[in-house]
Amino acid sequence: MEEVYKRSVKLHEEMQGKIEMTNKIAVDNTDTLSLVYSPGVAQPCLEIEKDPERAYDMTMKGNTIAVVTNGTAVLGLGDIGPLASLPVMEGKAMLFKKFAGINAVPICIDSTNTRHIIETITRIAPAFGGINLEDIKAPESFEIEEKLQDLGIPVFHDDQHGTAIVTLAALVNAAKVTGRRLEDMKVVINGAGAAGIAIAKLLRCFDIDSELCRSVKQLIVCDSKGAIHRFRHDLNKAKTELLKYSNFDDVDGDIHDVIQGADVFIGVSKGDILTQEDIKNMADDPIIFAMANPTPEILPEECHAAGASIVGTGRSDYPNQINNVLAFPGIFKGALMARAEVISTEMKLAAAYAIARSVEQPTKEMVIPSALDTSLADVVAKAVEQAVYHEREMEQKIAEAEAKLTND
Amino acid sequence: MEEVYKRSVKLHEEMQGKIEMTNKIAVDNTDTLSLVYSPGVAQPCLEIEKDPERAYDMTMKGNTIAVVTNGTAVLGLGDIGPLASLPVMEGKAMLFKKFAGINAVPICIDSTNTRHIIETITRIAPAFGGINLEDIKAPESFEIEEKLQDLGIPVFHDDQHGTAIVTLAALVNAAKVTGRRLEDMKVVINGAGAAGIAIAKLLRCFDIDSELCRSVKQLIVCDSKGAIHRFRHDLNKAKTELLKYSNFDDVDGDIHDVIQGADVFIGVSKGDILTQEDIKNMADDPIIFAMANPTPEILPEECHAAGASIVGTGRSDYPNQINNVLAFPGIFKGALMARAEVISTEMKLAAAYAIARSVEQPTKEMVIPSALDTSLADVVAKAVEQAVYHEREMEQKIAEAEAKLTND
Repeated sequence: MEEVYKRSVKLHEEMQGKIEMTNKIAVDNTDTLSLVYSPGVAQPCLEIEKDPERAYDMTMKGNTIAVVTNGTAVLGLGDIGPLASLPVMEGKAMLFKKFAGINAVPICIDSTNTRHIIETITRIAPAFGGINLEDIKAPESFEIEEKLQDLGIPVFHDDQHGTAIVTLAALVNAAKVTGRRLEDMKVVINGAGAAGIAIAKLLRCFDIDSELCRSVKQLIVCDSKGAIHRFRHDLNKAKTELLKYSNFDDVDGDIHDVIQGADVFIGVSKGDILTQEDIKNMADDPIIFAMANPTPEILPEECHAAGASIVGTGRSDYPNQINNVLAFPGIFKGALMARAEVISTEMKLAAAYAIARSVEQPTKEMVIPSALDTSLADVVAKAVEQAVYHEREMEQKIAEAEAKLTND
Repeated sequence: MEEVYKRSVKLHEEMQGKIEMTNKIAVDNTDTLSLVYSPGVAQPCLEIEKDPERAYDMTMKGNTIAVVTNGTAVLGLGDIGPLASLPVMEGKAMLFKKFAGINAVPICIDSTNTRHIIETITRIAPAFGGINLEDIKAPESFEIEEKLQDLGIPVFHDDQHGTAIVTLAALVNAAKVTGRRLEDMKVVINGAGAAGIAIAKLLRCFDIDSELCRSVKQLIVCDSKGAIHRFRHDLNKAKTELLKYSNFDDVDGDIHDVIQGADVFIGVSKGDILTQEDIKNMADDPIIFAMANPTPEILPEECHAAGASIVGTGRSDYPNQINNVLAFPGIFKGALMARAEVISTEMKLAAAYAIARSVEQPTKEMVIPSALDTSLADVVAKAVEQAVYHEREMEQKIAEAEAKLTND
């Protein structure tokens, strides 16, 4: 067994749980007890009963989320079930705490039934300020996230949107370093699972009233059978929806065909599928984000040997680690600060551009901040919070304009 | 508004959550990150997938419970709903941490449907080592607890059994102080809700292979309509079941009739219903546990004026506070230590007698330890743990005896 695995088992056995619930004040006399519990606690209860918004002022709700999984798509391990996924959920909770100060509670749901998962999350929602969906298999995860958007608290599938946000951030800086504009680049995404689909949507989003939004215009997504286009008859719902965002010319072919002339390759598929030849066939100064884990679609040294300009991976042992820890802590922190009810596209874009801007002088070796940068979450949170206020302001203006029209 | 309420609101506003999730080790370098999260974490996951019991060694499960409510019977407030009950659940979680070092996670379920609550708890069970049901209205709480007994982790309704255990502990010492034996006393319980029914069952249990078990033999339970007996036609399922445990002579009458000649009054009903006359009508040296909150069934000073020997209440400002914080931390700690699958009657009795024994020299003013005694939970936990091992040993012996019979 590899050293890192042995050491991890040892650490887990020593710790018997990597996170714990702790009291924020000591309960060591009857006076304090009478305030935090019976009889005093009755009054906060009654105030919340009268005005549910008061829960954000007086309970943990405003700074606590659930990290929810059913263990069907855990890391590279696949369907290991809810209990076996708990070490990953605890690890994720540690990241939420470390980077954003958010309390994250692992909720491991013993069900693979989409309806049951939606029901369960809906029923346990009251005590939480947000829901981070984690390591739930696609396409179930799409439906679960979509159907929970009216829950009243943000529900965010990190495997999709976290990755998409950080990829967009890296791409914005990569474009800057290589003197391109997003709207002029031809981008190929390999992998049409949760991450690939979310990246495609975020790169193409243009339903946004934001000066930040510069959308990629030429985009092709490939799955294991090649380019996704209108003439394929084997597309599921999510891939069919992708046609709204990508491949308007219905280009056909496998990844080796499609990558020819592309400015950008984004890999969220599997290791070791590209060759130096593929990189040489791309446009000049190509940008490669090979994010398959642990083995990238092509190793950075091969990319550079073939003339690549900027290379990113999911790994910490190469430059430009595209890791969604750069996004999810700040996203949730900002959403909780603003008491947002959803994570909107504008909030995702605001996060991506905040991450990009946080690198003062982007270079080929640094288009994205370090995954251990603890100052980033606050910067992202503020941008996300502002995005919420901006959206509310817009809604308000529209409502006023409509009211005016009606009155006139 | 009373002072304690004002101060409680202020404290809750300052704290914005009384408990928080914290990391047990710092994640401040990529090495640690690679152990607590990807890639190292994959190995603990795989070991748990292979052997679920390993979760107790390597995750928070073995020391984490859910405090589950739907907010339908919160303190004296009644049905205030799941969100408004969160301050109470956080307070309860603080007590679990302070007294037993257990991580307790508030889960506030948005449903009053018994089946939905059972389903929800079943689905979120994997990450938890136990479930503490809290402030769920009877009779729903009975069915929920009963149907979850095969969940594989202990499910314990504290409002029932916590109160019953501490009441039995107090009664054991009160009997000792007044030179009586449990089996000779006539006991009257006023109140046939969750607590009253559980107290009746625990005082009468005799399905136990334990030298500790000395059962009360004469027991009458009253509800608001008087003594519960075979000739009443207005009894629900739970009250009907009580007939197996109580009032074998079918005594009729209201509480003022039934209390005549009783050695013990246990009140889990409402305030201010007894008079000095009632106390005078009891047997000599009567024992009064008037636990209605905040106003007891009769005030201690009136009891003493009428000649009562030992008086307990639920209040901290009188001697003999019968508070279930004496039981639930140790009960769960012991159950978790032994990895028990249920909280059995033997475990409850072991807890009650451990609490009783912890008072070295019981007196009229101290039949029960102080609610702030932090050493008690460990004592209770050890007794509960031993009870589990004893039960397993008995099961083993029975299995061996049966195997021998089959072979002979």
